[in-house]
Amino acid sequence: MTDLWREQADKLFKDIEAISRDSHEGITRETYGRGESEAISYLADFALTHDLVVEYDRAGNVIFKRKSDNGNAAFWYGSHLDSVPQGGNYDGLAGVIAGLLCLCRLDREKIETTHSVRVLGLRGEESAWYGKSYIGSRAVVGTLNAQDLRLKNRFSKRTLGEAMQAVGADTDAICRQEWLIDKSQFAGYLEVHIEQAESLERMGQALGIVPGIRGNLRHNLIRCLGEDGHSGAVAREDRHDSVFAVSELVARIDNRWSEYVAGGKDLVVTVGTLGTNAAHHAVSRIPGEVSFSLEMRSLHQSTLDEFYEVALAEVKAIENERKVRFEFDKRIDTAPAAMHEPWVETFIQQARQQGHQGVRTPSGAGHDAAVFANAGIPSAMIFIRNQHGSHNPNEAMALDDFLAASEVLYFSTLELTS
Amino acid sequence: MTDLWREQADKLFKDIEAISRDSHEGITRETYGRGESEAISYLADFALTHDLVVEYDRAGNVIFKRKSDNGNAAFWYGSHLDSVPQGGNYDGLAGVIAGLLCLCRLDREKIETTHSVRVLGLRGEESAWYGKSYIGSRAVVGTLNAQDLRLKNRFSKRTLGEAMQAVGADTDAICRQEWLIDKSQFAGYLEVHIEQAESLERMGQALGIVPGIRGNLRHNLIRCLGEDGHSGAVAREDRHDSVFAVSELVARIDNRWSEYVAGGKDLVVTVGTLGTNAAHHAVSRIPGEVSFSLEMRSLHQSTLDEFYEVALAEVKAIENERKVRFEFDKRIDTAPAAMHEPWVETFIQQARQQGHQGVRTPSGAGHDAAVFANAGIPSAMIFIRNQHGSHNPNEAMALDDFLAASEVLYFSTLELTS
Repeated sequence: MTDLWREQADKLFKDIEAISRDSHEGITRETYGRGESEAISYLADFALTHDLVVEYDRAGNVIFKRKSDNGNAAFWYGSHLDSVPQGGNYDGLAGVIAGLLCLCRLDREKIETTHSVRVLGLRGEESAWYGKSYIGSRAVVGTLNAQDLRLKNRFSKRTLGEAMQAVGADTDAICRQEWLIDKSQFAGYLEVHIEQAESLERMGQALGIVPGIRGNLRHNLIRCLGEDGHSGAVAREDRHDSVFAVSELVARIDNRWSEYVAGGKDLVVTVGTLGTNAAHHAVSRIPGEVSFSLEMRSLHQSTLDEFYEVALAEVKAIENERKVRFEFDKRIDTAPAAMHEPWVETFIQQARQQGHQGVRTPSGAGHDAAVFANAGIPSAMIFIRNQHGSHNPNEAMALDDFLAASEVLYFSTLELTS
Repeated sequence: MTDLWREQADKLFKDIEAISRDSHEGITRETYGRGESEAISYLADFALTHDLVVEYDRAGNVIFKRKSDNGNAAFWYGSHLDSVPQGGNYDGLAGVIAGLLCLCRLDREKIETTHSVRVLGLRGEESAWYGKSYIGSRAVVGTLNAQDLRLKNRFSKRTLGEAMQAVGADTDAICRQEWLIDKSQFAGYLEVHIEQAESLERMGQALGIVPGIRGNLRHNLIRCLGEDGHSGAVAREDRHDSVFAVSELVARIDNRWSEYVAGGKDLVVTVGTLGTNAAHHAVSRIPGEVSFSLEMRSLHQSTLDEFYEVALAEVKAIENERKVRFEFDKRIDTAPAAMHEPWVETFIQQARQQGHQGVRTPSGAGHDAAVFANAGIPSAMIFIRNQHGSHNPNEAMALDDFLAASEVLYFSTLELTS
């Protein structure tokens, strides 16, 4: 049986890789675009030849069902079919293929389940195209809105609304923010995904079970305004140097962050973009302006809220001490999501029965599972070990690890639906 | 007499302002270019109508002499006639006009001096045009070279060599790096200049006497190389974040700098340019690369050399602690210049006789006087109070303050040449 799985999985990954190979390097499956649609077509053909039912929801996501589906609340296996530009083949795709192969196996083994089991092949998880994440899943649960539909593709400049209409999505329903699949249809959401960090690789574990998904708190643009001046002519005590101010701020935040981590709190902090104003800066000019971003991520909203206050207090202190001013753009929040603990335990027990440690692996990156969990649907995730990080052409996954995770998903499903 | 000085000075400043007004705002007198040449022509006409001799050296600088000049070693009043783009009217010009009016007064009062007194109206002091400072004075003392002549104007892209030839400079002699005015012709160099900081303004002093000019030590480009990563997926202890590394470096340098200043050392430190790599950075990506500049200025070379080692030690510590790497471009040194102490005292005494405090005002910015001093010519400087800083259209100087400084220069000259 495992030989058939391996053969099918290997062929599916290779064929879809060939379909979506980028002309430059890696894999490109555009959000609500070509590579994503071609992967859906390919998988739909596969599903039909394996006697499954293929449907589409009103957001253009693909649904695979068994013919025996009773139409009631179901367990949904899901993940996404898009990728970042020049990304890897497994980010997203692995979860859809795992679900699809589980459906085939349920049919093949003629298993009757209490709840039906379906696959949801989601579109538009990656923010790389429209600056917005989880588009397909947000649309399903009614949290995408009219403003989002006006977002423009960074490359083609086409709006998201146009791209969604082109694949048959019901943008009127999306604007009304209604559930595009009735909420009563969801008994639960189960996602397999490659880990986007390398913690499993370092632990030597093929798979891990996700207890929760970090939320984040962001300012895309903070400006520190000081005072320009001649670098030789202004004394230390007369300076209002924005680079020294921001450096001190980051160093102070770093110290407070280390205290949080030492205290056992889950937190990461990133200043991803930073720069003096290129229109004015010079080696011999005291910089009067620095712009930067600030992002915090944690499994716990309370940690995000607390640490945000800590950071703001440091900002105030530096404003007073250095006579500079910080200007913040809008604070953007994405809530953390806890996975459904009984199912986390089920996954862990099944993993152990398959000979794994069943390590708890919190997710630093966001996932569609967080959208469903935060919309009130019990959700759970299994991570597959990944080498070389994610969102790059070198992203790697061993087929054995994929099969191990799929087995845990399959046997957990049997337990949850028996 | 003071009424005539005031009238002449007022007219000279206003007429040259009118000649060199920028079409957008402020004053533009291009290095070895139009505004600078027009100011020289205007001043040459003024000198001729006041019965002075006008000559040019082999670098295109203008020389004003009295007809009674004996041709031996002379005291040279000097400053520069160019400006930064859209700068102010007084930076440089004030010193040439002060010298010229002193020459006229010596004639008018029929004073015979032991050494002749001349004015050197220098070209090309500002680095804003060719990325190189003190071009006219460096050429005179033989420290400009063939490589410098290949520098391109940032705006017109014409080479410095072409621009110098266009005003009659002898670029062959410059390439040979010989003195373009024989060194034996210099008994001393005396420069009046507006202060480029506002320390005199804050002290309520019309003028100050310069004991020395800060040198500097620069790296135009330092790169900190860490490791890119997903901002949510990589734990604190696994990060090699270049922004946190550079922020800590700047914060540490700031602490060490404050110790130096508290210990009475003359030092300023500036990171004028700083930035993540815009081709790769993102709000949600751990930044693997930051570029920045580092400049230190001090009146004392030993302080520069010592603090440079302090900074390098901090770099090494951060490289070890954070597993990042710093790459430095070429270190560029400009030596500090001490002014000739006996003449500093002469200026101070004369200032006091005129009712000023004669405060010692170290120069943070560089000046042509540093070039002459470092070439072995005794040099001294008087600063005029300036409001609103320098290198901007709002640069300000009161005519009274200018006249006060000119009087100190005049009576000091009488003392030094009697």
